[in-house]
Amino acid sequence: MNAPEKLSLFVLSAWSAQQLATVEQALSRWVACPTDAPAPAGLGDAMRYAVLDGGKRLRPLLVMAAREAVNGSMEAALRAACAVELIHAYSLVHDDMPCMDNDVLRRGKPTVHVRFGQAQALLAGDALQALAFELLTPEGDSVAVATQAHLCRMLAQAAGFQGMAGGQAIDLASVGRPLTSDQLHDMHRLKTGALLQTSVMMGAACGAATPAAQSALRDYGAAVGLAFQVVDDILDVTADSATLGKTAGKDAAQDKPTFVSLMGLQASRDYAQQLLAHALARLEVSGLENTHALRALADMLVNRQH
Amino acid sequence: MNAPEKLSLFVLSAWSAQQLATVEQALSRWVACPTDAPAPAGLGDAMRYAVLDGGKRLRPLLVMAAREAVNGSMEAALRAACAVELIHAYSLVHDDMPCMDNDVLRRGKPTVHVRFGQAQALLAGDALQALAFELLTPEGDSVAVATQAHLCRMLAQAAGFQGMAGGQAIDLASVGRPLTSDQLHDMHRLKTGALLQTSVMMGAACGAATPAAQSALRDYGAAVGLAFQVVDDILDVTADSATLGKTAGKDAAQDKPTFVSLMGLQASRDYAQQLLAHALARLEVSGLENTHALRALADMLVNRQH
Repeated sequence: MNAPEKLSLFVLSAWSAQQLATVEQALSRWVACPTDAPAPAGLGDAMRYAVLDGGKRLRPLLVMAAREAVNGSMEAALRAACAVELIHAYSLVHDDMPCMDNDVLRRGKPTVHVRFGQAQALLAGDALQALAFELLTPEGDSVAVATQAHLCRMLAQAAGFQGMAGGQAIDLASVGRPLTSDQLHDMHRLKTGALLQTSVMMGAACGAATPAAQSALRDYGAAVGLAFQVVDDILDVTADSATLGKTAGKDAAQDKPTFVSLMGLQASRDYAQQLLAHALARLEVSGLENTHALRALADMLVNRQH
Repeated sequence: MNAPEKLSLFVLSAWSAQQLATVEQALSRWVACPTDAPAPAGLGDAMRYAVLDGGKRLRPLLVMAAREAVNGSMEAALRAACAVELIHAYSLVHDDMPCMDNDVLRRGKPTVHVRFGQAQALLAGDALQALAFELLTPEGDSVAVATQAHLCRMLAQAAGFQGMAGGQAIDLASVGRPLTSDQLHDMHRLKTGALLQTSVMMGAACGAATPAAQSALRDYGAAVGLAFQVVDDILDVTADSATLGKTAGKDAAQDKPTFVSLMGLQASRDYAQQLLAHALARLEVSGLENTHALRALADMLVNRQH
């Protein structure tokens, strides 16, 4: 690790601790437990179990870091950060169900359907998706209505058939079938990339950014989103379940195509570093001044051990 | 049937044929098949199967009828009508799955999971929910951003833990358990009532309505939403599967509490008529002039045979 990387990790740890505390507090307040009308019949428990006390919160951190770069509205960004995390959380709940990946361990805990039953898990996921859009559209003028509408549009597109859900459909269809490099890229661009990139763009939408800055952030988001998946594939073969908090070696066992199975381990590592370099280079020419957090996050995402 | 009722059914059939043609065309255009990026890997087929060529489109008709009463934006109302139908359609897809109601017949056709598999059904439902919010937030100025944000807020609340998903959780928890009348009302107010009432209010939000008109429409929506469920319970014991297009007698077979099991058949019929009368009375004092379609719809919902 060279000096600038050490520095970026140091900066990140202080910055991210503060952001994470804010995001966790907001999630805890907003997820299914308003004092006037809490979620009924165990649904709130399942929703909170799916969201709270776990997760690296990468997507919220990307939202908050991009907001910082454009000096955007904190209220809008906090809502966007929580909304994007709810979409991520619901996708994990549904992914883990027996009819999908049939996974029993997530973040070191039993998955939602193991803990609450499949029917409640299905409903909790559905309710978390709705809640994401509820968080983005508060009454009153704390978030400009144009921003509310823009954030909803971005999140809906990233979550839907042209984004995450579409990528998961490709994933379903690809088990046990050889994919070309282009097809693997397409799948991950939708399945995980769309929501990560949109996290960046939602943070940017909380403020004003020049077209050049928006373009740079879009490329940064795409590179970081792809690098995230490449690193995920690497960790699936190099880390153990305890470190990951989920079942390791699963992709290989299920004969799922991955960057490692397609390119090999060393080439995958090189590729992740190239994507990181590209993401950082795009920030350099973005015209944005306060990109410390975005740079540090990219570095952390690529060099993480779990 | 007396003369005014005959008239209202006559008016409704002409009006609703026109509205339905518009809604069907819009759904067909908007659900998962844009020419630039259609839904991948069979997901679009499952989404379209879940939505097109079936359903009474009650919720879209309520949106369009309420829009007419307030002389609201057609573009906003058409998007709202389709969005609310997508939420309804996704809820049916997920409800029918083996871990929920395990139903194999819907609208006279195999359910989505029977036709496409459980994993694809789960994804299609998820993607339909996202698409609902995408439809509500078009780029450009065809729908005012304040309206976009307002429609998203209403739909998210009606679909989520304080609405439809919450009601379904109560439903799950209530199978085989006696419910009081209050508990049964609460369950249905959330499970089906919230989305029906919100259909009316979303139509109203496409234009300007006085507070008195909004209050009347809210009460109309609540009464119609409840009456719809009372009639559903009646039809579950009086109609056959072929007429309903779904498995009849299912609630009784599963020992689910219903209005009929709680109140008896005749009292349920009387109750539905009382709710209809209340809905119509509220329209009378709403100050709205063009309530023909809303009145006819209420009449049709309560007096339907399937």
